[in-house]
Amino acid sequence: MSLTGKRAIVFAENLYNELELWYPVLRLRGAGVKVDIAGTGSASTYTSKIGMPVEVSTSADKVQIAQVDALIIPGGYAPDYLRRYPAVLGLVRDALAQGKVVAAICHAGWVLASAGVLRGRTVTSVAAIKDDMTNAGATWVDREVVQDGTLITSRQPADLPAFCDAILGALGGVEATSLSRVTAATSAIEALRMAVQAEESAFRFYSAAVDKVKDPEAKNVFASLAKEEERHRKIVQDEYNRLTQDPTWDRYSIWRDVI
Amino acid sequence: MSLTGKRAIVFAENLYNELELWYPVLRLRGAGVKVDIAGTGSASTYTSKIGMPVEVSTSADKVQIAQVDALIIPGGYAPDYLRRYPAVLGLVRDALAQGKVVAAICHAGWVLASAGVLRGRTVTSVAAIKDDMTNAGATWVDREVVQDGTLITSRQPADLPAFCDAILGALGGVEATSLSRVTAATSAIEALRMAVQAEESAFRFYSAAVDKVKDPEAKNVFASLAKEEERHRKIVQDEYNRLTQDPTWDRYSIWRDVI
Repeated sequence: MSLTGKRAIVFAENLYNELELWYPVLRLRGAGVKVDIAGTGSASTYTSKIGMPVEVSTSADKVQIAQVDALIIPGGYAPDYLRRYPAVLGLVRDALAQGKVVAAICHAGWVLASAGVLRGRTVTSVAAIKDDMTNAGATWVDREVVQDGTLITSRQPADLPAFCDAILGALGGVEATSLSRVTAATSAIEALRMAVQAEESAFRFYSAAVDKVKDPEAKNVFASLAKEEERHRKIVQDEYNRLTQDPTWDRYSIWRDVI
Repeated sequence: MSLTGKRAIVFAENLYNELELWYPVLRLRGAGVKVDIAGTGSASTYTSKIGMPVEVSTSADKVQIAQVDALIIPGGYAPDYLRRYPAVLGLVRDALAQGKVVAAICHAGWVLASAGVLRGRTVTSVAAIKDDMTNAGATWVDREVVQDGTLITSRQPADLPAFCDAILGALGGVEATSLSRVTAATSAIEALRMAVQAEESAFRFYSAAVDKVKDPEAKNVFASLAKEEERHRKIVQDEYNRLTQDPTWDRYSIWRDVI
């Protein structure tokens, strides 16, 4: 999967949680996303709970939401500062209204509460702020990651792999590295949706590889693979369409025309 | 990709670099690898350069190399301690001798130097210890990740996505999330090798998903996809075999029997 062209903002303020800020930054950059770290405007460098510095490249009031695909809010006690800034809250509201990804982990739920975007939403957070979440109108559940529309929430640093899988998935890729999105309750429709995303991301990966390599034979190999993945995507998409439109769907029909 | 069943050891000692320890731990766990954090036996908890604690689950003298697929050595100044322990150095030597993955980032090259495994190897590291690497017999290059056999090295925290992609790739999966392994110099043979790994990892992912879901239709969907990926793997593997055995290989033959 390559998410080249996608842009994300990760918010920073003092007392941020080190892993909850840096893991998403590195993970998204590794997937090709352009990540900017935005402060509140109060400083150009912030320090984490145990003193790790982070230099910001912009501030909330300078971010143009139209140019951003995802907002990520790390935890720690930084959300206690972030929620005081109207520019931060405005970005969160605008992002959700425009169907963009908003991802919050741990104490970052506070920012969602102050932005007034929790009514009717299902979310998770660190257990300590569960009452603040429910008082703001949310349904709170205890899961490593909860995705409600484009709103993605997690509880703690150990949830970061699933949290970032969900963010990357919502940005249009799928993380084939993690089985965390497959649960006992996964339906055939969800399985096909995952497969469509996987084939799309494989297609984008091989297409981008064609441009990267110089060797003509390598270009041909990647181009053949891209074409094949595109063909796959269509087969799985057709199957998905059939299943979602016809309740008498023949469960054995996948690949029938291929094998 | 699911690497369920694979096991990795990440070494810890005082003054470890926070991101270089925790990013691989979380990333590998997210991919299904069982990760143990091993100390030198000097303590049960170590603290990072800026005071982040890590509790270890074992120590180097208790690790059975036969039960481990990868050793990962984070940087910071922890390697200055790790290199003093014969059990650590023995594990590094045994792992490489048995074809297992050894991955070192930043100052972790010191441990490789003391283990005496660098002669004739191509590696990278933080620039500060370049002389120690070359004096130990290595060829030193300045790249985000260098893979020489099963020895994987990187320079700094910003290289962590590529470093972990390479580790996961060497463990038998491929990270479709990163294009960092595709370069202008990638050959057709390398492209096919990546494709074989990608198809294998997709096969493992769908196979593991079959076991995870309860819904019979979802099981059928994942089983069909697994079967298809296995068929793909064979096609690409045949192509790889043909190319590596026959220099007059027809570059357009991939998928010829399929499309």
